[in-house]
This record gives sequence, structure tokens and C-alpha cells, in this order.
Amino acid sequence: MNPTYETIRYEVADGIATVTLDRPDALNAFTVTMANELIDVFGRAGRDDDARAVIVTGAGRAFCAGMDLSVGGNVFGLDGSMSPTPADLVERFEDPAVVEGVRDTGGRVALAIYDCPKPVIAAINGAAVGVGATMTCAMDFRLASTKARIGFVFGRIGIVPEACSTWFLPRIVGIQQALEWAYSADILTAQEAKDGGLVRSVHEPDDLLAGARALAHRFTDDRSPVAVALTRQMMYRNAATSHPREAHRAESLAMFWTSEGDGQEGVASFLEKRSPRFAGSASDLPDVFPTD
Amino acid sequence: MNPTYETIRYEVADGIATVTLDRPDALNAFTVTMANELIDVFGRAGRDDDARAVIVTGAGRAFCAGMDLSVGGNVFGLDGSMSPTPADLVERFEDPAVVEGVRDTGGRVALAIYDCPKPVIAAINGAAVGVGATMTCAMDFRLASTKARIGFVFGRIGIVPEACSTWFLPRIVGIQQALEWAYSADILTAQEAKDGGLVRSVHEPDDLLAGARALAHRFTDDRSPVAVALTRQMMYRNAATSHPREAHRAESLAMFWTSEGDGQEGVASFLEKRSPRFAGSASDLPDVFPTD
Amino acid sequence: MNPTYETIRYEVADGIATVTLDRPDALNAFTVTMANELIDVFGRAGRDDDARAVIVTGAGRAFCAGMDLSVGGNVFGLDGSMSPTPADLVERFEDPAVVEGVRDTGGRVALAIYDCPKPVIAAINGAAVGVGATMTCAMDFRLASTKARIGFVFGRIGIVPEACSTWFLPRIVGIQQALEWAYSADILTAQEAKDGGLVRSVHEPDDLLAGARALAHRFTDDRSPVAVALTRQMMYRNAATSHPREAHRAESLAMFWTSEGDGQEGVASFLEKRSPRFAGSASDLPDVFPTD
Repeated sequence: MNPTYETIRYEVADGIATVTLDRPDALNAFTVTMANELIDVFGRAGRDDDARAVIVTGAGRAFCAGMDLSVGGNVFGLDGSMSPTPADLVERFEDPAVVEGVRDTGGRVALAIYDCPKPVIAAINGAAVGVGATMTCAMDFRLASTKARIGFVFGRIGIVPEACSTWFLPRIVGIQQALEWAYSADILTAQEAKDGGLVRSVHEPDDLLAGARALAHRFTDDRSPVAVALTRQMMYRNAATSHPREAHRAESLAMFWTSEGDGQEGVASFLEKRSPRFAGSASDLPDVFPTD
Repeated sequence: MNPTYETIRYEVADGIATVTLDRPDALNAFTVTMANELIDVFGRAGRDDDARAVIVTGAGRAFCAGMDLSVGGNVFGLDGSMSPTPADLVERFEDPAVVEGVRDTGGRVALAIYDCPKPVIAAINGAAVGVGATMTCAMDFRLASTKARIGFVFGRIGIVPEACSTWFLPRIVGIQQALEWAYSADILTAQEAKDGGLVRSVHEPDDLLAGARALAHRFTDDRSPVAVALTRQMMYRNAATSHPREAHRAESLAMFWTSEGDGQEGVASFLEKRSPRFAGSASDLPDVFPTD
Repeated sequence: MNPTYETIRYEVADGIATVTLDRPDALNAFTVTMANELIDVFGRAGRDDDARAVIVTGAGRAFCAGMDLSVGGNVFGLDGSMSPTPADLVERFEDPAVVEGVRDTGGRVALAIYDCPKPVIAAINGAAVGVGATMTCAMDFRLASTKARIGFVFGRIGIVPEACSTWFLPRIVGIQQALEWAYSADILTAQEAKDGGLVRSVHEPDDLLAGARALAHRFTDDRSPVAVALTRQMMYRNAATSHPREAHRAESLAMFWTSEGDGQEGVASFLEKRSPRFAGSASDLPDVFPTD
């Protein structure tokens, strides 16, 4: 049975999970509740062996109109009585007072996406501004409707890009483009976002979800969930390690364990010219990185 | 009153600082004096609240023709009697004998640009070769006149790219393109440099400075200098950190402090549909990264 | 005299080394012997002052059809009786049991290419799949024949990308494109690989090797092998360091030592408008990075 959330929907069909931001009357504006529900749902999708990939989209005409500024008080959910230092964020990272009163809600969602062992596809159906734009940077792919409008608009209201976008965005589009979009706070059309390298492909509105599902199936049908999960983890980790030796260590272990596991069936099915029947599960991954 | 330099000019108008490399008879060739003056001027621009962005251009027909090879002796200003090791560069980094006798002058300028809390725009009006090319890599954007010619020409004279360009260039254009330009030492047209991702836009010679100023205003008008400065710092830092968790820490603090500061006015002005009046200053930034 | 190998050929002519994967009847499929011979040959090319650049291509109609699945047993050469942990790969990295029984053979080749102090050019003449694709990611440039087909096909057989490709590929093409190719396991045409940023240029089959040689000569003729080697090392290292200060340290030393060495001749020949005669050798490089 699908879980019940206040601000999102989670549905699994045909091996693909769809997460729908579901506050259409508020253009799916982001709240602290939505952040906590997204963190929960990415953990759930990670453990759910029926969900081989995750699509994120918005109900109604928007994807996500950014932080809901109508809630009043501190819209970011922060505790203004605190006076945190860089050291606090290192030492007290999991301290509930810091988690709730200091840590960026969008960033907590981005870390949950980063930790999800499934391909994650943003299907940007309409306005994606502020955290609605930055949260998609932590997803593997961004498909956009011709009606999508994407804006890193933080500069307009005196705040900064978040949701780990200063980590993801320069790795997707390069540092020059990332700085221009963040400084200018412009609203981009789908095509502009594609020309700049952020969006993978632009789709007619009625074809967007079908396009996202077709892409997801290319990543999941006849694929080992273990191999897909390790590939995702290694690509993000090793894109940011200092020496290829570190990649080699993780890849060696990933190859070792998959060649003992689903790789046996993979090679056999290849040689026998038949479809593979993989037994592995992404909820049971070998450990290929030293704990950090 | 504007400071007086021997080799450059510094002027602030309409909120934008313009730094002009000013040895036109020598095609603005780079000297140790110019390096020290550029380091001084980027520090000055960083502290100058009237300067919201920095444009760098060249007087006359060149941007910067590289190291001035006509000065004789060791044109790089190095002390050939020293025998430095990698450990010396770690332990004696700020030792005057190492600073003056070993450390690359272009790299000292690049680090001053990296530390500047303002958007920095290169307006490349003509030849930019050697350090004239590499110094622009440490700037956020490169706009080029149709007359610009850009060359990482170090290979032609048996030396190596410097000015931290081996850090910046692959992050701007990718490793394959960066290696080709560095190995080949080719002189690129403005269009070739744009096709390769180095140059943001190509302009008619008479429109170059106006284009640079228009871009600068998009980054500064109705913007919080605090938010812009933190965005710049986080984008460069987090483009090179190993885990998004580190970005999340800095972004959390930057969001925390801006939401207590200019973000209050930003949200209020947005809700009231009026232009914001930000009070923050880039010369007084919160500390969002652990000291390193 | 050229060394004799079982699975590859090594020839040096006109200053350029050509390594030919030479099992044409098996489409140059990769074996543990080929891995060990490639590691040997990249060390040899690094020490061979007559080889100023290295071209890698395939004999016959393929470049490399991936791991040879026809050898039976554990095609990856791994020791299935072991149970390695991430810590083992750190502590026992050079332990022969780990080297032979656990460490990815493609990754050992990639590290040998990474350590080679010469420009390395892949001339992809035909099918390059599996390790045939990933090994080219550790090379500086990929030139492809119109007949080339490139596929990161690991996902089809339940295993993961290797050969340090999760380190190299996102730095060549960005994280979004790297993930799509790795997840989808698609076979790309030469043009598709060029459009995605992997391949530098596409050539008619009969022109491929000539194109690779012409490129190599642009990197070696009238060049200091010391400066080329340091440029290569710094570009890969500093593309992955956390702060430009680290690049500045290495560049300062590289500039210091080349300005005392081949740079003297380089500047003199430039001022005298004649070709340089560099005396330095890539087999005798100054140490510009702290040992790690």
C-alpha cells in the first residue's frame, strides 16, 4: 500500500516510482513538511525493491514554485536565536537543534537524493524556481516540458543558492555557466536551460512523463539493481575524489562483488543470447567506499 | 580618490570597478610590479563597498601580451639560487623569500582574484597570451572582442601554464579541451575560444565594455552584496569539495545568516512588490567555511 | 629494438609511439595478459625519450571488443575465494594477492596511463566496448573513425564501469551525460560520442591514424618534453585538488624549475626568432607535488 503524505504522492507502477509534489493550489511551494516528506520518500524508494528508478514531477501547472513565502515567520524554518559556527556544523551535524534550527531544508533533501541507490529523473512540468530549481540539481537527469521555467532566483531576495546546488550545478554545467545563473537569478526557458547543459531534453507537455518513463526503463529493464546502484554511487563519489587511485579501489570492489554476484548471470545470459534474470537487490549493497 | 598605480588603472563608476592593464606601449605586458599592483587592487576592490563588481580590460589594442620578456635576467622574477621542494611550498608559503623568489607571480594574482568577494569579468579587448590568458581563467566570466586572440602559449618557450590555470581551466572547459590548448599552445580566435567553452560571448570591439558593464549590472542592481559574495565563494569552494555534505554545511550557514540579514528585506520587498534596499556589505561577510 | 609482446605491438617512429592492440581475430578482446602488457608498455613509453607522445589503436576492424568472455572461469581474473574490504584496498594496495586477485585489471592500466608523462591519444578505429571504451577515458584525447562504435556496456551483464572511468568520464563530459551512458549501456556512434563531448573529432577510416599523428606532432614538435610532462601531470592533479592554492604550489615549482631549465632556451629562441633546441627529458622530471 502506498504511504500517505501531506504534501507529496508516492506511487510505484511497472517498476518505476513516481514522486509527485502535490500542493497544486500553492504551485507546489516547498515547506518544511515537504522537505521531511521528501527525505522520507527517497529513503523509502531506496529500500523498495519494486522501485527501480524514481521520477519526480509536480501536480498541476507548476513543478515547484520555491519556498512557500506565505507561511510567515522564518520561512526557512530556522531558529534565529542560535548563533552557529562552521565548527558547529561539523561537530553537531546530527544534533536535532542544528538539524531543525540551522541546516538548510533543501540540502537535507539533496543529501537524501544523493544517498538514494536508484536513478532519479526530474520531469520538470512547469515553474521550477528557488529550491524548485536547486533540488533538481541533485537528481541525475532533468527533462523539461516546453512550459518549464527554471530560475535560481535566490539573488532576488538577498539569499543564496542551497540544496547542495553549489556542489552539483558546476559539475553539471561548468563553473562559468553556474555563476551566471546564480548571480543573475534569471528565469530560464526550457530551451535556454538545455543550451546551457542543465536540461537533458525538452518535451511537449503531454509527452513529458512518457519521456521520463521511457528513459527510466532504459536504465532498469534487464539491469542488475546492484550494478546500477553501485554505478550511481561511484560516479558521484569519484567525480569528486582527488586521485583516480581512489576510484580504482571502489571500482575494484564493485567489480569483484558484482562479478561474484549478478555478473555471473550477466555473462551467462550474454553468452547464451537470452535476457538475464538478475537476483541482486539495491537494498543489499556491498560496501565499496571506506566509511567517511 | 582613486589610488595611483604604475602599471594599472582603477576606476569606480556607477557601482562597477574597472581595472585597466595600462602599459599600452608594451601591449600591457605583465611584470612583477603589475602582479603586485593587481594583488593590491583586488584586495582594494574587495573592501570597497562602492565596487559591486570588477571588470578587467586592457588599454590600447592588447589585453595582455604575456610576461614582459624584454626586462632581461629572470623574467619570472624568481631567485635562481634557491632550491625549493614541494614541502617548502607548504611550510614556507608566506615566507618572503619564497613569496618573492619562488612563488609564481600570476598565481599570486589568481589567488587574489579567487579571494575577491565580487563578480569579476574579463573584457578581453585584444591579444591575451601567456599570463594574459591564464589570469582570465581565475575570473568568473570572459567576454571577448572579435579582435581578441587567446593563447596558452607556454609550451612554445619550454615552460608551463600557471596562474592556477591548471585548477581553473579544466573546471571551465573540461579536461580534454584544457589539455589540447595547453599542449598545442595555439592562438585561438574569439570564436574558437567561445566554441570551446572558455569565452562566454563575443562582441564587436566598440560594444565590448558596454557588454561587460551590462552583465555586471545584472549581477549587482537590486542584489545583496553579502549574498553575491557568499554565492561566489561557495560555488568555487564546493565545485572542488569531496562530498555534498560539505556544501550543505556552508550553504546552511550562508542561508542562516542571510535569512537573518538581507533576506529579511528581500522577502519583505518581494511580498510588497517593490525593489529591495539591502543594508549588508561584502566587506563584512559571515564565516561559512572552516578555516583551512 | 622494439619489445615483443603477445597481445600488443609497440613501435616508435618520427618521435611518436604507437601501441596497437593486436588480437585482431578476437576483435582485440582484453585479457589479463593484455592488461599486464599495457601496464608495461606505458611505463616503457614514459621512460623512452624517443617517444614524445603515445597513440593507441586497434589492429583490424575493432579497437577493443571488451573483456574476452571466451576464456571461461572468472573472466575478470579475480580470486573468488577472497573477501576484500575497502580497508584492504587501502592497506594492501600493492600486496600481490590483492593486485592479482582483487584489483580491476582495467584500472591498473588506467593508472599506468595516468602516470605516463606523455600526451596519450586514442585512435578509435572500430568497436570500443566495455574496457575498450573505459580505457580510452584515461587517455588525453579520443579521435574516432566514422566506423567507431563506443559503449559503456557493463550494465548489460550486471557489472559496473571500471578502469577508473567513474573518475575520468564525468570530468570529460559532465555528470549528467556520464550517468546516462553508464546506466543505458547504449552503443554510441562516433558522432553521438562527439556530440556528448567524449570524442574530440571524427575522421574517415583511412584518415584516422594520420589525424592522430598530426595532432601528436602539434604537441611535440619544438616542445620541451619536461614542460609537456609537467603540464599533463598538473592538469589532471589540479583538476581534482580542493583549493587553487594547491595548484599554485605545484605550478610555482614547475615554473621555477622549467625557467631554470628548458625555459632559458625557450625564451632565448623566442627572442632570436629561431626554433628552440630543448635539452630536457621527460624521464628526468622535477618533483612538484608532495608525495601522497
